[in-house]
Amino acid sequence: MTDDKTIESLVDRFKKKDKIALARLITIVENEPENAFKIFKHFEDINNDSYIIGLTGSPGVGKSTLTGAISQKILDEGKSVGIISVDPTSPFSGGAFLGDRVRMTNISLHPNVFMRSLASRGYKGGISRAVFDISMLYEAFGIDIIIIETVGVGQAEFDIYNLVYTVVVILVPGYGDVIQMQKAGIIEIGDIYDVNKKDLGGEDIAVQIEMMLDDTTFQSGYRPPVVLTDAINGEGIDELLQYIWDHKEHLELSELLKEKKENRFSYKISELIYSKVEQIVKKSFFNQGKITELIQHAMDDGKFKIYEIIHNKFEVMNLEVKEEE
Amino acid sequence: MTDDKTIESLVDRFKKKDKIALARLITIVENEPENAFKIFKHFEDINNDSYIIGLTGSPGVGKSTLTGAISQKILDEGKSVGIISVDPTSPFSGGAFLGDRVRMTNISLHPNVFMRSLASRGYKGGISRAVFDISMLYEAFGIDIIIIETVGVGQAEFDIYNLVYTVVVILVPGYGDVIQMQKAGIIEIGDIYDVNKKDLGGEDIAVQIEMMLDDTTFQSGYRPPVVLTDAINGEGIDELLQYIWDHKEHLELSELLKEKKENRFSYKISELIYSKVEQIVKKSFFNQGKITELIQHAMDDGKFKIYEIIHNKFEVMNLEVKEEE
Repeated sequence: MTDDKTIESLVDRFKKKDKIALARLITIVENEPENAFKIFKHFEDINNDSYIIGLTGSPGVGKSTLTGAISQKILDEGKSVGIISVDPTSPFSGGAFLGDRVRMTNISLHPNVFMRSLASRGYKGGISRAVFDISMLYEAFGIDIIIIETVGVGQAEFDIYNLVYTVVVILVPGYGDVIQMQKAGIIEIGDIYDVNKKDLGGEDIAVQIEMMLDDTTFQSGYRPPVVLTDAINGEGIDELLQYIWDHKEHLELSELLKEKKENRFSYKISELIYSKVEQIVKKSFFNQGKITELIQHAMDDGKFKIYEIIHNKFEVMNLEVKEEE
Repeated sequence: MTDDKTIESLVDRFKKKDKIALARLITIVENEPENAFKIFKHFEDINNDSYIIGLTGSPGVGKSTLTGAISQKILDEGKSVGIISVDPTSPFSGGAFLGDRVRMTNISLHPNVFMRSLASRGYKGGISRAVFDISMLYEAFGIDIIIIETVGVGQAEFDIYNLVYTVVVILVPGYGDVIQMQKAGIIEIGDIYDVNKKDLGGEDIAVQIEMMLDDTTFQSGYRPPVVLTDAINGEGIDELLQYIWDHKEHLELSELLKEKKENRFSYKISELIYSKVEQIVKKSFFNQGKITELIQHAMDDGKFKIYEIIHNKFEVMNLEVKEEE
């Protein structure tokens, strides 16, 4: 557990734009979420709004090459970029082969790039909790654009979609990707569809996506565009980035951005409340050997009974939430 | 919400081995976990113990073909099989191509096979909650062997490993699979490693796994075996199944099976308690417009403040857990 003095000193350096202090504070919120409030309470005077982009797709679609290519363009425009990578196969998270890692080196050395990679599990409160808190630190640090890169499967990834403003779904030709992503529900969440490795026959996939979009009604009047890229050669990146800015503008003009920001807070507020409640439950119940007692009960008297036992035991439970004065 | 009378009538039919009643009860526990105790309280007189096997691996490694092949062998031994599939690309969950689905038809029509497929998200209390409850229904129905098939990524999948007794990790040649699975932490959880599609160069992978195992200390004296299979042609399936029974015997002799059963209950008891607490928190706090108030606060007075606000608001929260008389 990091002590308060260390946190305060790191916050001081953070406010002076010390990148090492940023990195250390990220490590603290990753591992000690219960200490996050001690950091963020010092940020009342900070007003930066980052724009948050999500890039999602199966391993091997070229997410990280795309992230690198987009980041380079954003850097060229004079903006800073913060990358959060949740992908065991990404070079950002140390999961890919040397070739990839070398390919990314050019942006990773840029002074206005910040990178953080997360394993896909093992975080208190879950991976999306960690992603949210890191994005808040990036935001407080004054970063312009945040890119969250995820493998698009599982509940955790879907939670992450609630934390970003523009979702780019990346597909590649081959292996019936559109059908599979449709089954997994990923295909419905894109604000922009990017068909990467277009030289391998991407137009067929683009047509499939367009057909799917034809069957969809868009209430806000925004229809997700489909863009073909070849990230390794830099083809289509300008177009993709333009679509991202177009979507941003659409959100701003339609007040949907405000709604998305409210969603972000709503997610975080619920998460904070539940983690607080969890701490209290652990303290008041789990530490009293009662779990062991219940397990023994299940082993001895029949496993099917545990549902009813817990249902009854908690029937009269009373939760008091007192207001702060 | 299913009414109590319907549940009781389904339970009656369930006890008479009515497969349709089983299917309908599964649907109830999937969608209405708060009703599960009304089902399980009728099972006090049931003593069946199923043996629970987990099969895990990336999409495309042939998990479902293997599941089919193993199930066929188990059926041939006169035992019943219950399959739970958590994989958007599996034919069991309706996610694969026609060819696969046809391939599975032979076992799916067998009277002693039970199948249930789950999407990878959207379940109250999470996917592992649903998997657990379905496995309990299978167990109560008298099924001998339960096979849980999952895609091996994400926290949810790791939770599932706690619910099974024998974990078979499936790999295929190509795309640096061992390294990737090692990064993702999947490689450490296998009780048996199966290299499928061995005709494509599986021996190299088998050697890599053996080398990894050479570097590992096994406290219980059990070293996970590595088996080469070709599920489509049925090659190596007998050997794989024998390894599963060997592991089962090892668990039984070493009392580790008891420990694994306790883990299963421990997981479920915690989950039941938290879901109960969650219901109470929702009722006592979330429904009072306080979340909206907090979101507004964050939008107006600064987003970084929410951490501290919630920290303070709940500082004095008091949780009372009364015992049942």
